[in-house]
Amino acid sequence: MKFGFFDDNEKEYVITTPKTPLPWINYLGCDNFFSLYSNTCGGYTFYKDAKLLRLTRYRYNNIPTDTGGKYFYINDNGTIWNPGWQPTKTELDSYECRHGLGYSRITSSKNKLKACVTAFVPLEDNCEINQVLLTNDSTDTKTFSLFSYVEFCLWNAVDDMTNFQRNLSIGEVEVDGSEIYHKTEYRERRNHYAIFAANQKADGFDTSRDAFLGAYNATDDPAVVNSKCSANSIASGWSPIGSHHFNITLKPGESKSLIFVLGYIENKEEDKWESLNIINKKPAKAMLSRYSSDEQVTVALNNLKDHWNQLLSKYVVSCKDDKLCRMVNIWNQYQCIVTFNMSRSASYYESGTGRGMGFRDSCQDLLGFVHLIPDRARERIIDIASTQFEDGSAYHQYQPLTKKGNLDIGSGFNDDPLWLIACVSAYIRETGDLSILGETVPFDNDESKTASLLEHLRRSFDYTLTHLGPHKLPLIGRADWNDCLNLNCFSKEPGESFQTTGPSEGPIAESVFIAGMFVKYGKEYATICHELNDFEEEVRALAAVESMNKAVLESGWDGQWFLRAYDANSNKVGSHECTEGKIFIEPQGFCVLAGIGVEEGLAKKALDSVKEHLDTKYGIMLLQPAYSKYYLNLGEISSYPPGYKENAGIFCHNNPWVSIAESVIGRGDRAFEIYQKTCPAYLEDISEIHRTEPYVYSQMIAGADAVFHGEAKNSWLTGTAAWTFVNVSQYILGIQPDYKGLVINPCVPSGFGDFTITREFRNAIYYISIKNEHNTQKGISKLIVDDKEMFSNLIPFEKGKTTYYVTAIME
Amino acid sequence: MKFGFFDDNEKEYVITTPKTPLPWINYLGCDNFFSLYSNTCGGYTFYKDAKLLRLTRYRYNNIPTDTGGKYFYINDNGTIWNPGWQPTKTELDSYECRHGLGYSRITSSKNKLKACVTAFVPLEDNCEINQVLLTNDSTDTKTFSLFSYVEFCLWNAVDDMTNFQRNLSIGEVEVDGSEIYHKTEYRERRNHYAIFAANQKADGFDTSRDAFLGAYNATDDPAVVNSKCSANSIASGWSPIGSHHFNITLKPGESKSLIFVLGYIENKEEDKWESLNIINKKPAKAMLSRYSSDEQVTVALNNLKDHWNQLLSKYVVSCKDDKLCRMVNIWNQYQCIVTFNMSRSASYYESGTGRGMGFRDSCQDLLGFVHLIPDRARERIIDIASTQFEDGSAYHQYQPLTKKGNLDIGSGFNDDPLWLIACVSAYIRETGDLSILGETVPFDNDESKTASLLEHLRRSFDYTLTHLGPHKLPLIGRADWNDCLNLNCFSKEPGESFQTTGPSEGPIAESVFIAGMFVKYGKEYATICHELNDFEEEVRALAAVESMNKAVLESGWDGQWFLRAYDANSNKVGSHECTEGKIFIEPQGFCVLAGIGVEEGLAKKALDSVKEHLDTKYGIMLLQPAYSKYYLNLGEISSYPPGYKENAGIFCHNNPWVSIAESVIGRGDRAFEIYQKTCPAYLEDISEIHRTEPYVYSQMIAGADAVFHGEAKNSWLTGTAAWTFVNVSQYILGIQPDYKGLVINPCVPSGFGDFTITREFRNAIYYISIKNEHNTQKGISKLIVDDKEMFSNLIPFEKGKTTYYVTAIME
Repeated sequence: MKFGFFDDNEKEYVITTPKTPLPWINYLGCDNFFSLYSNTCGGYTFYKDAKLLRLTRYRYNNIPTDTGGKYFYINDNGTIWNPGWQPTKTELDSYECRHGLGYSRITSSKNKLKACVTAFVPLEDNCEINQVLLTNDSTDTKTFSLFSYVEFCLWNAVDDMTNFQRNLSIGEVEVDGSEIYHKTEYRERRNHYAIFAANQKADGFDTSRDAFLGAYNATDDPAVVNSKCSANSIASGWSPIGSHHFNITLKPGESKSLIFVLGYIENKEEDKWESLNIINKKPAKAMLSRYSSDEQVTVALNNLKDHWNQLLSKYVVSCKDDKLCRMVNIWNQYQCIVTFNMSRSASYYESGTGRGMGFRDSCQDLLGFVHLIPDRARERIIDIASTQFEDGSAYHQYQPLTKKGNLDIGSGFNDDPLWLIACVSAYIRETGDLSILGETVPFDNDESKTASLLEHLRRSFDYTLTHLGPHKLPLIGRADWNDCLNLNCFSKEPGESFQTTGPSEGPIAESVFIAGMFVKYGKEYATICHELNDFEEEVRALAAVESMNKAVLESGWDGQWFLRAYDANSNKVGSHECTEGKIFIEPQGFCVLAGIGVEEGLAKKALDSVKEHLDTKYGIMLLQPAYSKYYLNLGEISSYPPGYKENAGIFCHNNPWVSIAESVIGRGDRAFEIYQKTCPAYLEDISEIHRTEPYVYSQMIAGADAVFHGEAKNSWLTGTAAWTFVNVSQYILGIQPDYKGLVINPCVPSGFGDFTITREFRNAIYYISIKNEHNTQKGISKLIVDDKEMFSNLIPFEKGKTTYYVTAIME
Repeated sequence: MKFGFFDDNEKEYVITTPKTPLPWINYLGCDNFFSLYSNTCGGYTFYKDAKLLRLTRYRYNNIPTDTGGKYFYINDNGTIWNPGWQPTKTELDSYECRHGLGYSRITSSKNKLKACVTAFVPLEDNCEINQVLLTNDSTDTKTFSLFSYVEFCLWNAVDDMTNFQRNLSIGEVEVDGSEIYHKTEYRERRNHYAIFAANQKADGFDTSRDAFLGAYNATDDPAVVNSKCSANSIASGWSPIGSHHFNITLKPGESKSLIFVLGYIENKEEDKWESLNIINKKPAKAMLSRYSSDEQVTVALNNLKDHWNQLLSKYVVSCKDDKLCRMVNIWNQYQCIVTFNMSRSASYYESGTGRGMGFRDSCQDLLGFVHLIPDRARERIIDIASTQFEDGSAYHQYQPLTKKGNLDIGSGFNDDPLWLIACVSAYIRETGDLSILGETVPFDNDESKTASLLEHLRRSFDYTLTHLGPHKLPLIGRADWNDCLNLNCFSKEPGESFQTTGPSEGPIAESVFIAGMFVKYGKEYATICHELNDFEEEVRALAAVESMNKAVLESGWDGQWFLRAYDANSNKVGSHECTEGKIFIEPQGFCVLAGIGVEEGLAKKALDSVKEHLDTKYGIMLLQPAYSKYYLNLGEISSYPPGYKENAGIFCHNNPWVSIAESVIGRGDRAFEIYQKTCPAYLEDISEIHRTEPYVYSQMIAGADAVFHGEAKNSWLTGTAAWTFVNVSQYILGIQPDYKGLVINPCVPSGFGDFTITREFRNAIYYISIKNEHNTQKGISKLIVDDKEMFSNLIPFEKGKTTYYVTAIME
């Protein structure tokens, strides 16, 4: 069942009912000021940090779902309704929500009154604009009331929901005409306040939640809206809100627009006050003046659209599969940027109160956005590398504001170091900018201990090489990519972190997955050395890679597939000898995409085993059979009920690894089948099963062992976005950034047909046309660049050349 | 305006409308299993620790207020209502909530169907019982549906409201007939589950919140209740709930009772499972069998009532002031026990997610419950003293489960050590048990470093003595009793803790309040030494006390009142020389009750100044004039808006100090006036202003500078309970436990009349009759014990004697 449709022309997803299976959201904001915005106007707003500087309150796991947002109420002759349906849930005569790139627009009508709410965060200011356009579609004059409503958060979202003995006494506001200022704690150490203002003179206002709602009332039944009369309340403690009231009369056919701005203002210490306890409102008023007319708002919205259109013009495919096109050209790239902005902090599943940016998360996210924002990717790489330790290991997380490593979780996740090579090589391949390798980067953010970024990579490489176990495979440490495979943990106490309990270095437990990574990114490291003409280091690296390759073939192969690991007693994990968890997805994907066992025929065997044992119609499960009980020696993975999360869920992040692996061995049909299974656009028709947004990836889909097989969870903030984009853009469509230029190496399913790609690469534009007359699945036989035939599938990059016309022929 | 009345006979407060200004709650549970229970059935349940082992979910600061509880829904021919009004808020034909001691009973009716819900935690089991009695008061047969509803918390209340990417996948239940088992995480490291069961065969059940409520529905409109048909849902992830459905038919006049039990069960590791993934239910079924009949429930409830009646029989006053009698005999003592059980963890203002037991909080709470549960007071003292450091300082908080000091907050609150003397002396005065002083008690919970409790007291005493500032007054450190007076903090960053920022030891800033404490409890320490015949130490202690007394008179007197402190620059705080914060309440109360300046006439002057500058009709404010802005050198106190909390709020905890001080100088009228102003029973008639429960004290009442002057906040968990009980029982009514026996030293207002007190003391019962024919305010002139006239106001304790008949004559 569908709950909307894609409008590819407008780059929008159009939701046609407010009653989606779960709230379907969008992200507003590009830089420092962000809002989560659901299809019923739910969500919240923050500045830079979703925990520390939250402007509006949101109750996660609330009843009803997703009540809390920026609401507008209309009282039209006693019928009280919201354009976004929630919270009154008054049935609407029409409803449409368009989630676009950085903006959302909800249009609905009731009793021939139409309301259109357009919400976005402009590029240049720290505010969210809500433009409300009201139109009388009836033949009679209509007189009605419009009320706005936001509930302020007292800034620190964790403190706000726990420290009531203080918080209920500190709320403070100021009201100046239609401007409502939320200034809690501004009297003391904060130098910032929030503003919620309307661009026209209001007929009343409220700032006390109790006054607005009435005692024991929910937001579905506010006393003030009922009575059509604001209390003009000034909050003192308890819960400050912002609400405006407008009495409006519209003649038949007449429209009226109102602009509401919710903004964040910082003042310098010396400019905090206008007079005793009266805040300095000048910067707020200056901001409001930039959005006081419909014309200004239209310009700001158009600027925002231009910004996104320009960003997304860097990779554009045209082919006969609409679903693939819209994912590649719009939604997958959009989601990659959102993961850049949000990391794993604020979604409808991530409560915005955890603080860490993951080392490996950030490295992998970068694979998805490096072509869009290479400069910011460069910054991000330096930030990440700066948290590495001198021995090459890394903090597993770092704090986004201080950019320092998170001591609470520390290090010991032994895949982390290699992801640094992954993201640096992706950056260089994209940009050709080898200079980044010469950047001076501290260890552990200590400026007295620095080295070149290249040296950081060497330490990443050597960390793995010097932490091998009995089978010469890499030690797993606390965990590898699978944070829930905790082979050195042995936790018996509820509440203990599976990730930090137990020693960070176990001397026995080994990961075949990290071995695969080492082969993949060890080769990358060798290539980087080659590019720098350091052939000695290149040879050293390749020799180590070859040894690892051998170790995997000798001790990492189980007969029909790759083993997952050896536990702390050197017992096999992910072997046919195991009772449960016989086969895991990760090593099959990563070993093959690294090229291990391809020549020996093991790669094909491993991928066939994946299909036989792990495949479902909704994607490939992480392991089988699911663990039916808790295993002390395995850790968190066995703590989940079968079919969920790492315990045999379809963990979408690793599905593209297998798809890529299939393309490595040339099976385009299978690679594409895997791509489709978890790709949201292809799941739109089964939204009642999939439940999350059909325009973005989710972290997990319940596996075959689960009660609700096919149900997705944790949409938006997942490394799945980056890896699926890498898969579809580089391996399926086959446009691969390489050190010397773009490589064309597609791997498509039968019947895919011809396709074209417009690719911006190193400030040049490539118009690439790929012909596939003979229905070939893999590779090209002929490459013509600007009428000149090439001798390989590489389009050599030529400095200064701005346009490339490319034709590639699949044999 | 009143919202109910006291039923003194039943020891109940009877609430006559669900629409109280704020939820008015009760506490169920005496030992390990507790529920908060509001007058609309809101609240939550936990086992031992409100953060780590929470059975049911509760959303603080929710909209509507206080939705979340153990609800019963009745669908009577389409009219859907709840006996507690919430959450449907269907108007009731009658409503009554009786909060008793450890139980609550809500009786209401709609359309001639009566429902009576009795909720309590039995003495012997870890469960809450809800007995629902339904009566058809109409003349027709009634057929209707009853649904139960609880929402389970996934145990750790903080994780439950933040870690959704895990939690939405782990919920698990089992259903066995009418027994619903919540077993999330039992598969792995938990050895406990929750049970929610009915004593009769249900017609249906639900365990999935979404199935029960329906998508986007609130608890005011559950789909299943609407349809009168359970979905028999088995939760898998998302939000597990427990709901039963009963189809009931009642003839005119007929009644039916149902018993619901919500319980907590722990199994031993080896007894966890009945079979693979099927939990061992034996202990749950055994518990249910103890509450399967109305007779069993009645016995259990009567046992609970007996328990409380016996506890409260230890201090019973009879006088002509009903309000005073009900506070002394019932509610104040009840609240003292609740503070013993809860410390500051779980109330409607304390979210149950903070972990610390305060060192000073616990010492002071003990003053209020030591006469009720002396054995548990003894244990508590040892727990507290075990967190002391070798130098006499103390962790400011300790963890209730581990009983270890809380490193996050550390030490440096320089009043803490002296409170240990306060509580130990109170214990010895009450029990005569000097043996506690010989107990071996560790420092910092390190069994390799121990000393006698007496030595701990000496270190408390000497810590103060060796930490004096330039005026020979005690250094304040991080703060003294007033946690918000942070003279060594200088915090500029929002979010920094005022309590832990800055040095713990400032070498300059001094507290006159701690000086008062030192004089008071230094004398106590000297008396203890005297009792142990250590006259040398007694003399040393008294000399030090005398020096401190002198230092206060020399450097702590401001002309009309006692100074509050010297800041880190040795500038005065709480002086007429200050622009704001000229006079503080704490030193006036504590210096005078310690006897400082009484002879010199300064005590009277100080208390007159309190009346002149700090008094309001709702109590005495903490300081005046309120701080209008943030002072770096003063800290958190100036962070609050004027009139709230420590910034000139009426901080109820310290009002009894002034009342006691007034009694020290013999002004009974004024002492009693102060007592009355913050005493909830006297505020019942202005509940629309006071807002919190009229049967328990609140921490704070908004001061004269506040917008809502007279509005109280943070009821239940406050040291006010203990201090007001000390005041009224020992200083106003004048029954003072002393080392050698009971001292009779009343200080009452004119017109108070004769009164009698029954007091259990050291296993003897004292029947005390106090005659006041001449309307004397202070002291007695004649004391007759068992027909024998005494030569002082002491009733000497005689070992073995079990009954004392006492007559005291006020001149």
